[in-house]
Amino acid sequence: MAISELRKDPVVDRWVIIATERSKRPHANRTRTESGRDEPCPFCAGREGDTPPEVLAYRDPSAPADTPGWRVRVVPNKYPALDSMGDISLPTDSAYVALSGVGAHEVIIESPKHCLSMAELAEGQIEDVLRAYRERLIVLQNDRRWKSILIYKNQGSAAGATLEHVHSQLLAMSIVPREIDHEWRALVSHHDMTNSCLYCEMLDRERSDGRRIVLESAAFIGFCPFASRFPFEIWLMPKEHSPMFDSVANDELRQLAFMLRQSLQRLAGIVDAPLNYVLHSAPLKEAKRDHYHWHLEILPRISKIAGFELASGYYINTVAPESAALQLRELAL
Amino acid sequence: MAISELRKDPVVDRWVIIATERSKRPHANRTRTESGRDEPCPFCAGREGDTPPEVLAYRDPSAPADTPGWRVRVVPNKYPALDSMGDISLPTDSAYVALSGVGAHEVIIESPKHCLSMAELAEGQIEDVLRAYRERLIVLQNDRRWKSILIYKNQGSAAGATLEHVHSQLLAMSIVPREIDHEWRALVSHHDMTNSCLYCEMLDRERSDGRRIVLESAAFIGFCPFASRFPFEIWLMPKEHSPMFDSVANDELRQLAFMLRQSLQRLAGIVDAPLNYVLHSAPLKEAKRDHYHWHLEILPRISKIAGFELASGYYINTVAPESAALQLRELAL
Repeated sequence: MAISELRKDPVVDRWVIIATERSKRPHANRTRTESGRDEPCPFCAGREGDTPPEVLAYRDPSAPADTPGWRVRVVPNKYPALDSMGDISLPTDSAYVALSGVGAHEVIIESPKHCLSMAELAEGQIEDVLRAYRERLIVLQNDRRWKSILIYKNQGSAAGATLEHVHSQLLAMSIVPREIDHEWRALVSHHDMTNSCLYCEMLDRERSDGRRIVLESAAFIGFCPFASRFPFEIWLMPKEHSPMFDSVANDELRQLAFMLRQSLQRLAGIVDAPLNYVLHSAPLKEAKRDHYHWHLEILPRISKIAGFELASGYYINTVAPESAALQLRELAL
Repeated sequence: MAISELRKDPVVDRWVIIATERSKRPHANRTRTESGRDEPCPFCAGREGDTPPEVLAYRDPSAPADTPGWRVRVVPNKYPALDSMGDISLPTDSAYVALSGVGAHEVIIESPKHCLSMAELAEGQIEDVLRAYRERLIVLQNDRRWKSILIYKNQGSAAGATLEHVHSQLLAMSIVPREIDHEWRALVSHHDMTNSCLYCEMLDRERSDGRRIVLESAAFIGFCPFASRFPFEIWLMPKEHSPMFDSVANDELRQLAFMLRQSLQRLAGIVDAPLNYVLHSAPLKEAKRDHYHWHLEILPRISKIAGFELASGYYINTVAPESAALQLRELAL
């Protein structure tokens, strides 16, 4: 029996991972509590035995695997939503489509110390985290079962974190999720018509307008998007067209670490809110995937996702991105 | 200057309502607090002057408007996301599409008493609430500016409620939101191919299978859908094909009140969680809108909407709907 099942809604393009094993997580399905400090944190240095064996670590070369001495550590999720063993099944029912829950679900532990916020990490530490993303993407895309790899962060209980120790997650999937698929299709369609990337055009416009720019480096722009879903939403995007995060150069990793740390610190200086971020990188196998333009979307969870958002797929945002960018830009750190 | 602006993301089909006036709500943008009882509740009987004048009330006929003596009261939202005055504008920028925020945003106050949960209301009271939905839908669809009308409930702070007094909301919009549009398109496409409604087929299958059924009345089925996004998600759907909620008969309103109250009480008996519900009714102006099949989706907010959900548009659910339905069905009330 697989640990989970991928089910598609019979009417709309909405897949659900039915992952009953995940209900065994120590903090799963509690609605009120922040994770307490009453039990030892499995992500802290010295508790390596509490997680599955590491698949990657940046550490003192003299320290053996799964012992202290690491800076960043990547482990399989102990309560995975998807199981990396097994083959992709074919659906047997055309109306109620279900697939076995095959995928890779990993946790990137971003610090050996029990930090609660990525904004507290040093720039070099964040660079190591980004390097780990790149390394795992390169390894996992060789597995022909995966069609897309999502990397995302849940920081704070209201943003979906069940453990408070600073970490992010990677989910390699046998399907291309709707949000990435729609974005990729729109970019391909625009490119087919105009021979140009819509995100590249957007960046030109943002740079000449300037009102929504938050910060900039040689290779990246950080801006509050025109149709920001959340107050103080920030996107970090490479200026040069680039479809996949895994092709990012070492110097760009350094710049991105600076941009990400600055963004998180500026956000924290305005409002201490839970947040998610999501790495948008091209689907792995699609034709014309080179028309994608990778970027990182930082989504502060200041407002709640309520009935309107669930009913419509749209959002109500009470802070205009022009005002958000101005506040973020002018904040003295 | 309009109170808000509808903006479309330049790449994907995602509209955002930029509603800066809503940041003036007394409890807006607080992330930690439940609304306190330290200030008087504007939805309680006796505080009618704290809301805009009512557009509908079921009350003792001798009591004048905007005074006590009502059972259910509908008022314009004091901090509306959209403004009912003004004409639909045409976008002037083809890349960054923005429309003036024209729409109707109303609040349905479901009880004169300060109840926190709809499950506490008597069946007749819930019937009045549903009747108010029907009446406002019938009135508002005569306004040719609206293409869709959403009715939804936010119950509990984590589900997006800023006031705890039991209420729901109505939003009439000049666009058809993505979730309704995709559902309607899928139903039309299936009907074009098969001359049959996909939801009607789904109901046949659910009834013959039985594992996901929670409760049933002469006209309605309550079931946990095959691809439930949330643990204990319940849909209430009319057995006979019916596109629009506004055509629901009085006897059906009574049955639906029973079904809804039972569902909410059964949910509350298993887990005391915040929840949303969303009324799915046909878009107002589309061709072939008769192929829609209206229903009510009850979405308990037990799990958090986290990075995975935002990145993918999909969900991770730790309780299989077959198990959820069994628990809900067998609960002794």
